[in-house]
Amino acid sequence: MAGMAFIYSPLDRKANHRSDAQWLLAQLNHPKAKFIQMFEDSVRIAHDELFLAKPEGVHGFVFLGEDEKAEPWFTFRAKTEGEMVPLRPLMMGHTIPRETLSIIAQARSLLHWHEKHSFCANCGAPTQMADAGYRRICASCKTEHFPRTDPVVIMAVRHNGKLLLGRQKAWVAGQYSAIAGFMEPGETMEQAVAREVLEETGITVGKVHYIASQPWPFPSSLMIGCVAEAENSTIIVDEKELETARWFDFADVRLMLAHKHPSGMHASHPWAIAHVVIKAALDE
Amino acid sequence: MAGMAFIYSPLDRKANHRSDAQWLLAQLNHPKAKFIQMFEDSVRIAHDELFLAKPEGVHGFVFLGEDEKAEPWFTFRAKTEGEMVPLRPLMMGHTIPRETLSIIAQARSLLHWHEKHSFCANCGAPTQMADAGYRRICASCKTEHFPRTDPVVIMAVRHNGKLLLGRQKAWVAGQYSAIAGFMEPGETMEQAVAREVLEETGITVGKVHYIASQPWPFPSSLMIGCVAEAENSTIIVDEKELETARWFDFADVRLMLAHKHPSGMHASHPWAIAHVVIKAALDE
Repeated sequence: MAGMAFIYSPLDRKANHRSDAQWLLAQLNHPKAKFIQMFEDSVRIAHDELFLAKPEGVHGFVFLGEDEKAEPWFTFRAKTEGEMVPLRPLMMGHTIPRETLSIIAQARSLLHWHEKHSFCANCGAPTQMADAGYRRICASCKTEHFPRTDPVVIMAVRHNGKLLLGRQKAWVAGQYSAIAGFMEPGETMEQAVAREVLEETGITVGKVHYIASQPWPFPSSLMIGCVAEAENSTIIVDEKELETARWFDFADVRLMLAHKHPSGMHASHPWAIAHVVIKAALDE
Repeated sequence: MAGMAFIYSPLDRKANHRSDAQWLLAQLNHPKAKFIQMFEDSVRIAHDELFLAKPEGVHGFVFLGEDEKAEPWFTFRAKTEGEMVPLRPLMMGHTIPRETLSIIAQARSLLHWHEKHSFCANCGAPTQMADAGYRRICASCKTEHFPRTDPVVIMAVRHNGKLLLGRQKAWVAGQYSAIAGFMEPGETMEQAVAREVLEETGITVGKVHYIASQPWPFPSSLMIGCVAEAENSTIIVDEKELETARWFDFADVRLMLAHKHPSGMHASHPWAIAHVVIKAALDE
């Protein structure tokens, strides 16, 4: 799991203190306070490092937490796109420490939620940020809104020594990954795994094992990684979801994970949990 | 896990078909189509059975899925509260088959989402239902909205042969349960477990094992049940969250789960995943 992105946040979120305005003000005025500037999913970088200086005249700071040195981290939406680098290349590029990248993921998910929730879904009136960014309140109907985290199941499916991988049309040539999909209300994780695999590939799944989870800030998913045992092998692809799905020999998948398959086919990169669940399915 | 509520849905959700208006109309007109009437979290019951007749002049049906007999199930918001029974007593009462209760849970979560999302959180304009109830669209800014599922971690915490349980002030006297809390953006399930336990009880958690999951329709949580190993034992209760938290001997917890403890103390009921994770912590 060493390569997965976004799972290394060193922050203590101090959730118990967020509604304490006095405490929050002290954090904002902390001489070592750090401020991540984001514009949509891009983050401000200066001289190859995250730019963290305190800005002038900004409102709507979201508190992220305190690091090991008890220094507070905040984020806010920048006014311009200048000197910004999108999160995906940052994730792939290894220039930002993995701990910092994990903090940026938290920032991105929370800011995206605020950007898309200026109004009350219950009554249509404007909402305002509260609790240092972990709540929005409607002044009109008083409804409270909380940040969204959308659970997604992602699973490596095994059968008779083979592994089921799929690819979407939009992906680069040769790329394959684990089947995945958003969970729906009223189902267990295990039921969601079975439903998604059946919908997308026509394969019936029996036993499901949980492997690991990963926050995925595009914009705010919780990836729930599993290995699932298939009960049949005839694939019927849902062409709205996937371009194709195939059974692969374990030996091929090992080469695909290492990006060393002679055919040029390759499987998910280590920063994605897909890599971890595929590896778990091969090794366990 | 036999006693957990809401995990026995027999429905095939037919997600691939939901945006097909022709197909949906055929389902609505199916002679055996079933229609669950809900008003907030109450469901219409007649003669001790779920009332499933097709109503006249109702719009906004949500499609739930097809049962084993290929008969479609729908739900909709009733206009009155007449002949309604709330979901919690139904869950506790065992008069409704567990499969049907699981379908009602799905219905409740989806209807609640529609009830609270008549307006676009992005721009404040009215939204309209699409995809048989699995999407809402803003006619003004075109933002698409999808049903919420809020992941909650719930964990039995062990240390030196003892189990950590807490109680909230509002609970009936003597009741204890596992620590729980909503996940936040930017964290793994395991990090959320550690954060919640630390926040609420001051206990530091090491290893976390996933046990099971459960949809919890009050209104739309995904309960993620874990066992966690504590690394210290001095409890500092967050009194905003809990009235108290204590370490219990395993023998006491067994009696509390069975509602046979001489003190009158008792632990979570079998329909809740808390019961399952506590039992797993004792048995594993």
